[in-house]
Amino acid sequence: MSVENAMLRLKKIFGERFSTNKSILEVHGSDESYFPCTPPDGVVFPISKEEIVQIISICSEENCPVIPWGVGTSLEGHSLAFKGGITIDFINMKKILEVNEEDLNVVIQPGITREELNQELRTTGLFFPIDPGANATLGGMAATRASGTTAVRYGTMKENVLSLEVVLADGKIIRTGTRAKKDSSGYDLTSLFIGSEGTLGIITEITLKLQGQPEAVSAAVCAFEDIESAVNSVILITQMGIPIARIELVDSAMIRGLNLWDKDFELPETSHLFLEFHGSNNGVKEQAETVGEIISEYGGSDYKWATKTEERNQLWRARHNAYYAAKALRPGCMVLTTDSCVPISKLSEAILETIEDIKNSPLEGPIVGHVGDGNFHTALLLDPNEPKELEIAKEISAKLNARSLALGGTVTGEHGIGKGKMQYMHKQHGEAWQIMGGIKRTLDPKNILNPGKVVSLN
Amino acid sequence: MSVENAMLRLKKIFGERFSTNKSILEVHGSDESYFPCTPPDGVVFPISKEEIVQIISICSEENCPVIPWGVGTSLEGHSLAFKGGITIDFINMKKILEVNEEDLNVVIQPGITREELNQELRTTGLFFPIDPGANATLGGMAATRASGTTAVRYGTMKENVLSLEVVLADGKIIRTGTRAKKDSSGYDLTSLFIGSEGTLGIITEITLKLQGQPEAVSAAVCAFEDIESAVNSVILITQMGIPIARIELVDSAMIRGLNLWDKDFELPETSHLFLEFHGSNNGVKEQAETVGEIISEYGGSDYKWATKTEERNQLWRARHNAYYAAKALRPGCMVLTTDSCVPISKLSEAILETIEDIKNSPLEGPIVGHVGDGNFHTALLLDPNEPKELEIAKEISAKLNARSLALGGTVTGEHGIGKGKMQYMHKQHGEAWQIMGGIKRTLDPKNILNPGKVVSLN
Repeated sequence: MSVENAMLRLKKIFGERFSTNKSILEVHGSDESYFPCTPPDGVVFPISKEEIVQIISICSEENCPVIPWGVGTSLEGHSLAFKGGITIDFINMKKILEVNEEDLNVVIQPGITREELNQELRTTGLFFPIDPGANATLGGMAATRASGTTAVRYGTMKENVLSLEVVLADGKIIRTGTRAKKDSSGYDLTSLFIGSEGTLGIITEITLKLQGQPEAVSAAVCAFEDIESAVNSVILITQMGIPIARIELVDSAMIRGLNLWDKDFELPETSHLFLEFHGSNNGVKEQAETVGEIISEYGGSDYKWATKTEERNQLWRARHNAYYAAKALRPGCMVLTTDSCVPISKLSEAILETIEDIKNSPLEGPIVGHVGDGNFHTALLLDPNEPKELEIAKEISAKLNARSLALGGTVTGEHGIGKGKMQYMHKQHGEAWQIMGGIKRTLDPKNILNPGKVVSLN
Repeated sequence: MSVENAMLRLKKIFGERFSTNKSILEVHGSDESYFPCTPPDGVVFPISKEEIVQIISICSEENCPVIPWGVGTSLEGHSLAFKGGITIDFINMKKILEVNEEDLNVVIQPGITREELNQELRTTGLFFPIDPGANATLGGMAATRASGTTAVRYGTMKENVLSLEVVLADGKIIRTGTRAKKDSSGYDLTSLFIGSEGTLGIITEITLKLQGQPEAVSAAVCAFEDIESAVNSVILITQMGIPIARIELVDSAMIRGLNLWDKDFELPETSHLFLEFHGSNNGVKEQAETVGEIISEYGGSDYKWATKTEERNQLWRARHNAYYAAKALRPGCMVLTTDSCVPISKLSEAILETIEDIKNSPLEGPIVGHVGDGNFHTALLLDPNEPKELEIAKEISAKLNARSLALGGTVTGEHGIGKGKMQYMHKQHGEAWQIMGGIKRTLDPKNILNPGKVVSLN
């Protein structure tokens, strides 16, 4: 029983689709987190759930860690092989298995990315709304309970996955949920696997809810004198129940990064909201008018419309590349991204105190936020050759996370735990973290599924 | 270690708030299901979570079953004491602990009913939208993952509970989730407890999401020549993404029942849709116009408006009392209610074949449905003194449930498993049911929490 045995057996079955090539291992040892490269012992590229059953069965017999891999956009080291083992790369499992247009759902393999999916759906008049920015795989998004810019209107992966097919640690396949919109039959296993980060089972099929493409879409940008006014208008917009599709805070530092990153971008260096409205022609008009009134009440100016698809795409491309725009502020830097989410009434307080902490440090930390959900990110920019900077960033992050918890929020609104947030799990969940550990032990008694993440078994 | 010991110890602590009075036991032995009265050994009336910790600790030490009780509106025997033991009645735990208006949420004790809650919230401009018809407690609604007429717009309890406080089988208190709108920190325990029917822990506090009261509300009734046309218009309305707040099918037999039950009700005895729109003044007008067009395309007539609050209330009071209206068709009868939920593309097929089955039986079975979700109920009317009728009803129900599963749906869209649907759990979930059993064993190793429900430990 060993990782070596597992590798020999996998090589025999998968041939060239099992690799121990150094550069392939290294690709699977680096994500978008601040962790150093941590490669697995081998990478396997299955094409079917049957093959995944084979892999898991072998790894179970050989007590070998198994780590699922989408496209490596994780920010907390979810898919890094801290305990060695075999990485399962889903790149050959991108099939759309069924589009059920009448039922507004689609059945997919987990390796397809959200942009690939929406490209394929384009002719149906339907789309999958969740948009974390990164062109992540749907499997990865389900496993981390991802969300992003549109969650304020459409919810997170939790609200948008109808059912899953999962290979368990013993190689059995189960199906959670049904194709019906609602289900009250027993424990909600679908929700249990969403956000379990590959530690309870390997997702092999996902049924996603789809939305009709809205009749009208319009986007706008608005500048504010200070962050507080921007956040306060968001609070009022949310409270009034306006079904806004996106409402993103971009602080002055991040605007500077965007201006640097995209030469066509020339916004004044102050806090902005980026907004998008979905609905009928009249509905969008009405939403935009009401929002406009609220914004001007809080001193917002330059309520500029991006009416053409091209302008709108430029806007969201910019927002979605905030990670790279932030990097443009300090070329060659590494980024530690925070992910606080608090009750919206506490959002101003959380952001302003964080800005104060950053000001009092030697680091830069531009801020963006899915503020309609109370969620914001600080991109702390670090010199990779200065370990002290990583320490300072971790201190700022620790203060921020303590603040989130004190304000009734969470240390991660959408990025997940991986290894990066493990230290906060007991603080956030108390005894409930033990319950998570108990569930892990029940579903994965040998601790082979992405070990060392989410739960502690000590 | 015995139920008797537990009772002695509880009596000592709770005095008059612990009862073995026969009539009190009988009240807690009957819900709205077809099961005969199955009383517990004792009923305790705690006033705080600390007292619930005491109760659970004693029952754990004494290996005594514990069954939570709201107001007894369950349709599947969820809270009946099939294995004896102690029922915890939440009638003295109705407090609203916090209303967080800015964050659109409320913290409550589980014994408050949804009508009581909305009564208290009236002055805030906020409301809790989930409406299962019965004036159930929020604790019961969370425990059964309830939904009802408004789920088509606002979702089910799964989407509307932000966090829970739960007393576990060993008397420990945990808190699941946070006050933030999103959370990616580990396994989704909130969703695990919602729908667990008291088998994994006792809910002692619930944080619910609230909605702003819509600017405009309007309701309408529309008659159709046949059920198929009504269902087809619902399918199109759903597919067009119209954010309708309620869309209910009421078949001709149920209309007859309503006309009998409420003398002010005089609708033609044919299939109807009852509709409600929420939104801005313009938004509601626009929705109603689009829906009107679709309905007339499918031959719907008599698109009558209930514009006044009083008319609207009459309409929904009638719909919500369908259970009693159905009973009016056969005075003194008992009701077996089915709860099929299928993908909406299969809804016509599911309903029409069920009607055929009922026609071929000696029973009457009026139908209502939350058709926007693919969910419908047949109220099979039985003579309580004719055991053969119950057998026939169970046969019709079994055929219906097999059909739901074959069509990719569930045997219960919103009523839950209790004891009534246990026989379908393996059929619906296969191996996944074993996983539920494993989770139960982990959280409740002595099987004291509502034993015999949801999972099988054999």
